[in-house]
Amino acid sequence: MFKNRVSIEQVEEGTELAPKFDENGLIACVTTAAESGEVLMLGYMNEEALRKTIETGEAHYYSRSRQVLWHKGATSGLVQKVTEMRIDDDQDAVWIAVSIEGAGKTEGMDASCHVGYRSCFYRQVPTGQENPDLIFKEDGKTFDPEEIYPGAENPTKL
Amino acid sequence: MFKNRVSIEQVEEGTELAPKFDENGLIACVTTAAESGEVLMLGYMNEEALRKTIETGEAHYYSRSRQVLWHKGATSGLVQKVTEMRIDDDQDAVWIAVSIEGAGKTEGMDASCHVGYRSCFYRQVPTGQENPDLIFKEDGKTFDPEEIYPGAENPTKL
Repeated sequence: MFKNRVSIEQVEEGTELAPKFDENGLIACVTTAAESGEVLMLGYMNEEALRKTIETGEAHYYSRSRQVLWHKGATSGLVQKVTEMRIDDDQDAVWIAVSIEGAGKTEGMDASCHVGYRSCFYRQVPTGQENPDLIFKEDGKTFDPEEIYPGAENPTKL
Repeated sequence: MFKNRVSIEQVEEGTELAPKFDENGLIACVTTAAESGEVLMLGYMNEEALRKTIETGEAHYYSRSRQVLWHKGATSGLVQKVTEMRIDDDQDAVWIAVSIEGAGKTEGMDASCHVGYRSCFYRQVPTGQENPDLIFKEDGKTFDPEEIYPGAENPTKL
């Protein structure tokens, strides 16, 4: 599925899919909500995750904390259906727009963040100051992580 | 400006800005267009770039190819004014929404991509197939890179 990278012209101006994986074998993926355009998360894919996302049209990532292929929604039921996929100029990042579907979805429960918020980017960093305090921007959590991921280890690393 | 990371609760549920820089001293930054919500680029910031972005409200990145602090628009005139800045759950990624301003801006010329397109993500990856060819999605380039960056080395690496 992936072509070798042979020239800058091929990579930037061509139609061949020739992604660049970093020294850890990963490519960054920006995930936005298809309807609102809100950025939901920034994830990473290895070769297998990128291939499966393209083949199935459902978002697959590589979990850096758990070091496994991660079919988003396999645990929570909140599968991300890809409505549009893009790749950037030097093909070292992809952007997917997704709609949240699946057995786990109920009204208003379209979270993509393990903490329970709709977007992982639920806090604002005010600019123009030297010691900014973060400001919470969502009305509240859309689910309780303890219910959705019982007993799961928190993926956040210090 | 940046606090030490002491607990998962502090990082995920608190109001302290405690970003996590990776092994190369960088944090990923998703940049979207304030008006359209379109993803323009995925960049990286080091400590200095993140601090300057917060203090000045203008996007600063760290150029991995040139290995220098990069005030976006310093060469092209297309400065990115930050209209909203967010940080994610584990504070290892930021999202900025920007409007393009500056001396270099003319009608329709609000490009953020060094190749000359509006967005770096100017090509679609069709899903649901095993050998996808990329599809160009923008009508054309908004500027000629040779005019804007005369003699500059292309930052894309194979």
